[in-house]
Amino acid sequence: MELLKERIRKDGVLKAGNVLKVDSFINHQMDIALINEIGKEFKRRFADVKIDKILTIESSGIGIAAITAQYFDCPMVFAKKSQSINLDGTMLCAKIESFTHKRVYDVIVASRFISPGENILVIDDFMANGCAAQGLCEIIESAHANVAGIGIVIEKGFQMGGKMFREKGYRVESLAIVDSMDLETNTITFREE
Amino acid sequence: MELLKERIRKDGVLKAGNVLKVDSFINHQMDIALINEIGKEFKRRFADVKIDKILTIESSGIGIAAITAQYFDCPMVFAKKSQSINLDGTMLCAKIESFTHKRVYDVIVASRFISPGENILVIDDFMANGCAAQGLCEIIESAHANVAGIGIVIEKGFQMGGKMFREKGYRVESLAIVDSMDLETNTITFREE
Repeated sequence: MELLKERIRKDGVLKAGNVLKVDSFINHQMDIALINEIGKEFKRRFADVKIDKILTIESSGIGIAAITAQYFDCPMVFAKKSQSINLDGTMLCAKIESFTHKRVYDVIVASRFISPGENILVIDDFMANGCAAQGLCEIIESAHANVAGIGIVIEKGFQMGGKMFREKGYRVESLAIVDSMDLETNTITFREE
Repeated sequence: MELLKERIRKDGVLKAGNVLKVDSFINHQMDIALINEIGKEFKRRFADVKIDKILTIESSGIGIAAITAQYFDCPMVFAKKSQSINLDGTMLCAKIESFTHKRVYDVIVASRFISPGENILVIDDFMANGCAAQGLCEIIESAHANVAGIGIVIEKGFQMGGKMFREKGYRVESLAIVDSMDLETNTITFREE
């Protein structure tokens, strides 16, 4: 998605430790016009797939998934990272390890929001080692629903997540795949589509 | 907002401790069509106000604020509840006490995303004692920006938040104000508009 890559080149900030900061337009301040284009692009890429529901994980996936769900005309569910007193009833759970926060989270979705046979599109802002998406896929499959696809805004192509999912046969659509980042020259190399 | 009140009557669930669960359509699973109507209604109510930016707080405000920002044609910023390694630079901070989770949070916004003189609309899903909105207003005012208004989906009118803000002169627009909830008869009484 050329518009997104241009924006990452212009406003993305490289930091030590392979960190790519996009917090001025994606995951702290959100450029809603850009997020709309991202939603449209997910719809274009998954146009041939029947999607019953979109699943994401708090927090930075929520805004993207909410706007994307408009284009699929379906509900959106966001998984929670820890038990809340406002969650009750049966829960679907998975454990994920966060690259950003260097800790393990419990990811929770109320089981009544994922039904057997539903086709569910996983949406998230980043994929690095794929742990968050894997937790969401485990939750979907434990409910006997189908992972219809995984839509990622920015994939770190030099980490293993995307490769692992594609090898397992999941359909992953990443709108920008970063193959390398060079902090010294401040350059980002995207994978050719 | 009649559509919202009808939906709360239909799908809201009362729990002990004055808890109103709306997690099947607002803050776990999101009915995106309803959230769109909520966004339009916020725009209608604040149509006379110039809004430069929308500010909310993770997590359950994000989807509502993102969709609402479409109708104001402005960026959206979501405050974070604790320090992340991906946040750096100067921060604006406030402390808030969560009614739901019974703990105190640090609320953080990177200062470069709130500029002096900007007119900022605060959006959140619930207002009870008003602590979350107060933290966001403190952050806005500490940056010498203006709180253009506070838009709340569901206000618990029997708690003090809304009253406190209105007495201080803030413009609060709540789309549904719950004046009382009766767990035994399973009835919710909304304030007349």
